[in-house]
Amino acid sequence: MSSARDSTSWEDTAEVCRKILRDSIPKQWAMNAEDLQTKDIVNANDFLDNSGILSTEELEMTRSTVKGLLAKYASGTWTVEAVATAFLKRATVANQLLNFATEFLTESALEGAKALDKHFQENKTLVGPLHGVPISIKARQARSMFEHIAVGGKICNASFVSKIGNIPADDAHIVQLLKRAGAIVPFRTNQPQSLMHLDCNNNITGMTKNPLNPTLSPGGSSGGEGAAVGSRCSVLGVGTDIGGYVQNPASYCDAYGFKPTALRNPALGLNGAMGGQESIRGCVGPLSKSMDDLVRFEKALLDQKPWDLETTLVPLAWRDVKVTKDSLTVGIIVDDGALAIAEEKLKAAGIKVKHFAPYDHARGWDIVSRLYFADGGERVHAALDASGEPMLPLTQQALNWPLTITQNWELNFEREKYRREYHALMKERGVDVILCPAYVGVGALQGQTRHWHYTAIWNILDQPAVSFPSGVVTDKAKDPRITDFKPRSEEDAAEMAAYDPELYHGIPISIQLAGKHHQDEELLDAAKLVEEALLA
Amino acid sequence: MSSARDSTSWEDTAEVCRKILRDSIPKQWAMNAEDLQTKDIVNANDFLDNSGILSTEELEMTRSTVKGLLAKYASGTWTVEAVATAFLKRATVANQLLNFATEFLTESALEGAKALDKHFQENKTLVGPLHGVPISIKARQARSMFEHIAVGGKICNASFVSKIGNIPADDAHIVQLLKRAGAIVPFRTNQPQSLMHLDCNNNITGMTKNPLNPTLSPGGSSGGEGAAVGSRCSVLGVGTDIGGYVQNPASYCDAYGFKPTALRNPALGLNGAMGGQESIRGCVGPLSKSMDDLVRFEKALLDQKPWDLETTLVPLAWRDVKVTKDSLTVGIIVDDGALAIAEEKLKAAGIKVKHFAPYDHARGWDIVSRLYFADGGERVHAALDASGEPMLPLTQQALNWPLTITQNWELNFEREKYRREYHALMKERGVDVILCPAYVGVGALQGQTRHWHYTAIWNILDQPAVSFPSGVVTDKAKDPRITDFKPRSEEDAAEMAAYDPELYHGIPISIQLAGKHHQDEELLDAAKLVEEALLA
Repeated sequence: MSSARDSTSWEDTAEVCRKILRDSIPKQWAMNAEDLQTKDIVNANDFLDNSGILSTEELEMTRSTVKGLLAKYASGTWTVEAVATAFLKRATVANQLLNFATEFLTESALEGAKALDKHFQENKTLVGPLHGVPISIKARQARSMFEHIAVGGKICNASFVSKIGNIPADDAHIVQLLKRAGAIVPFRTNQPQSLMHLDCNNNITGMTKNPLNPTLSPGGSSGGEGAAVGSRCSVLGVGTDIGGYVQNPASYCDAYGFKPTALRNPALGLNGAMGGQESIRGCVGPLSKSMDDLVRFEKALLDQKPWDLETTLVPLAWRDVKVTKDSLTVGIIVDDGALAIAEEKLKAAGIKVKHFAPYDHARGWDIVSRLYFADGGERVHAALDASGEPMLPLTQQALNWPLTITQNWELNFEREKYRREYHALMKERGVDVILCPAYVGVGALQGQTRHWHYTAIWNILDQPAVSFPSGVVTDKAKDPRITDFKPRSEEDAAEMAAYDPELYHGIPISIQLAGKHHQDEELLDAAKLVEEALLA
Repeated sequence: MSSARDSTSWEDTAEVCRKILRDSIPKQWAMNAEDLQTKDIVNANDFLDNSGILSTEELEMTRSTVKGLLAKYASGTWTVEAVATAFLKRATVANQLLNFATEFLTESALEGAKALDKHFQENKTLVGPLHGVPISIKARQARSMFEHIAVGGKICNASFVSKIGNIPADDAHIVQLLKRAGAIVPFRTNQPQSLMHLDCNNNITGMTKNPLNPTLSPGGSSGGEGAAVGSRCSVLGVGTDIGGYVQNPASYCDAYGFKPTALRNPALGLNGAMGGQESIRGCVGPLSKSMDDLVRFEKALLDQKPWDLETTLVPLAWRDVKVTKDSLTVGIIVDDGALAIAEEKLKAAGIKVKHFAPYDHARGWDIVSRLYFADGGERVHAALDASGEPMLPLTQQALNWPLTITQNWELNFEREKYRREYHALMKERGVDVILCPAYVGVGALQGQTRHWHYTAIWNILDQPAVSFPSGVVTDKAKDPRITDFKPRSEEDAAEMAAYDPELYHGIPISIQLAGKHHQDEELLDAAKLVEEALLA
């Protein structure tokens, strides 16, 4: 591990990555600054869809799901090269607005696309379940064990300036499997310093913006993926999670985000500042624009038996399940208006609903928040000190006091007890899945997402969770600022004060559905039914 | 947690448990000391089989496997009451020789037996796959979180005097499941102080002896089970393991012992001084007198889906697999004469064999030995200090320096890397299972088992392993003391010096077979083939 401290300023080191990004941008598709009046663009998607950058067919391509793409490829209607080009064109301009990319991989993506097209021409078959599907990867560029999802030959830095020397030789396991299933990787995406923000800012390539409104946070830590998938610049995004880092950016960016039970999806070749921390397991999860795409992502990975290489994983194949309305009971944590609307719609669709009182979430949060940084942030401090880059406020917020080994053991014990109790309670109450908010509000300003509880509870419990658009959008007429609000706490008051009916007008409200431990398949199939009911 | 330190001496506190044991002994079956010339008895099994304590039919009962018992029950030939009585009679006398029991549960066992007989009379069906099978449980008596396998209403002390106040309300999860499958529990068995010896001694009920020779160690930490199952006082024994604690006592006592991959067998209601320590997972494993009984034990447990209550477990049902000679390649770590004989026999049986050079076992041991007591033994010291009982030498030997959280994370990372590499190497070398010694020698004197490596390697790797009799016995004529031995180390020299051809003459030599991570089913089915070849 080389330290840049002695000879180079952290700003100069960070510039290495900025240059890689600048140099990688496909100049043929970038817009001139004068033609791109970024200050006038509120909704990036509206701009991308209506500015004529993409042809009608290209717009259809970038609106496709996995299923839709495969059908077009199988019929010979579209080539992967044409589709990849459409996504790259869109991504190039979108990135000028949103700053979600850390590096474009145009050449390798187009080469991969051509190889897939050649395969199809010669064999009239698709190479796998993700044939020609553009999938972006959460990963900055840097050195050593601190980066996140390795892409072979590329800098991997976990958003620490001091890690900008890390160039893993090979793709991370998950990237290998996705490519083997036929995916192409058009670009890599941004993440926050230390990877532990529900936001997406760092001292290297800076802040990613939300496609719905650039003043809003894209969420995090998979915020680059939230912005990229939310603006339809990739069909699927590979996010990572330890506290809601997939569901949160998905929910902020009008996308779908799935956090599986830990130790199912491959994670070899991912290492942040918490490598070897096992008390709360991180995991990889997909972001997309449809529920079905999440299932296809999981199936494509787990059908390849990743546990036979990555022995840390649980050897559980993806099961094909069929959840029916008759067999499903949805517990609802009724907390706000969107949930009340959802309750009515579920009932109207004939799905059984029960109110579900949260069980001791404060106790769960107390356990998990002490376990995340049991080392007291020793590695984070070391990674920052090595370059001299300043610590961002949200990095600081996540840190905690160091634990002794004995304290760590005691908290592990308490965590398991809490998990058992919660699982038993769901059974006792006869609830299969729990519908709940994805966040305290519909979104947050840049740097202002401070509450992990809504999503982190499912990491504490190691239960799978998916966030997705509820079908309801914020309406300043129906959702005015509440003047007689009685806050339950200071935090509550601050959150209510942050609600701005003008700012959030028209922003889609996402919702979260959590399943039982290791019932990932049942969760996603139930989520299809719930979504169908909500959108009816 | 009450401490006895202030008011009572540790000896007086320990006396509580000794009295429970004394009071529980079924007096009707105990022999008078004058009739039981313990000093003359070398092999307890010979004595129990030939002294007329049991009738011919009772001897047949105590020689039965699970399959055999079920057939006799299903045909109405034997009642569970008669079988339970035979085992209790045998155990009462055997315990006078071997000191393996911590408490007899005669009344509840016989009540349970009668209930099973009533069920059969009324329904002509057995209640489950372990109907009327006598299963002993590794568990002393004591207070708090330090006991081992809870039996409802009974003291549970993990062999710490200070924990003699712990009386759990309920049976441990595994005990509940075994009883639900029809098992009866005739007695509980001894374990060493701290649970971390490959031996079986403590300051409460003292040392358990080996049925083959009372001067030998029964192994440990499931030494009480080794002695009980090895002397056919129960059909199955519930042991626990974190370093070879099932295979080691099984191998010393001419029995079968299976350590599954961690997180498969239920462990809720077990807590020693390492509760919450997750870097090296402990597990529960069965001891028996036949390979088939191990499979039946696993299937009976896992068919009950223990993961739906105990969410820590991996939700993997027991799979019925069929390993054939054609599909099997056995790697052999050729280290001594017994393995060379095994190699010939496997080849003669048409099983493919490859020599397997151990891969970096020293590195594995270095990782695991630092992880066991990452707390530096803080809890062990506290548990001893609370009563003032002295620390036994083997307790001391297992302790290590405390780690920081960061060091623990680094070792976790190294452990996973080692596991992946080992798994990949087995695949690369085309080896399905590995045949290796169960211990450096055929046995050890009381208090002298110091080498964990032969068994702990499979805990380090979290690979399943089974030890079983090789069919070869030590023969002083064929296996004399080697006079021109060139030791590889001081330890090696000490072990060779400890070999006493007279003492070990006639002692059966056990062998160990290890499988791949989470291929427990394949391992046990392969072990049946290997055993068949060895005994041919």
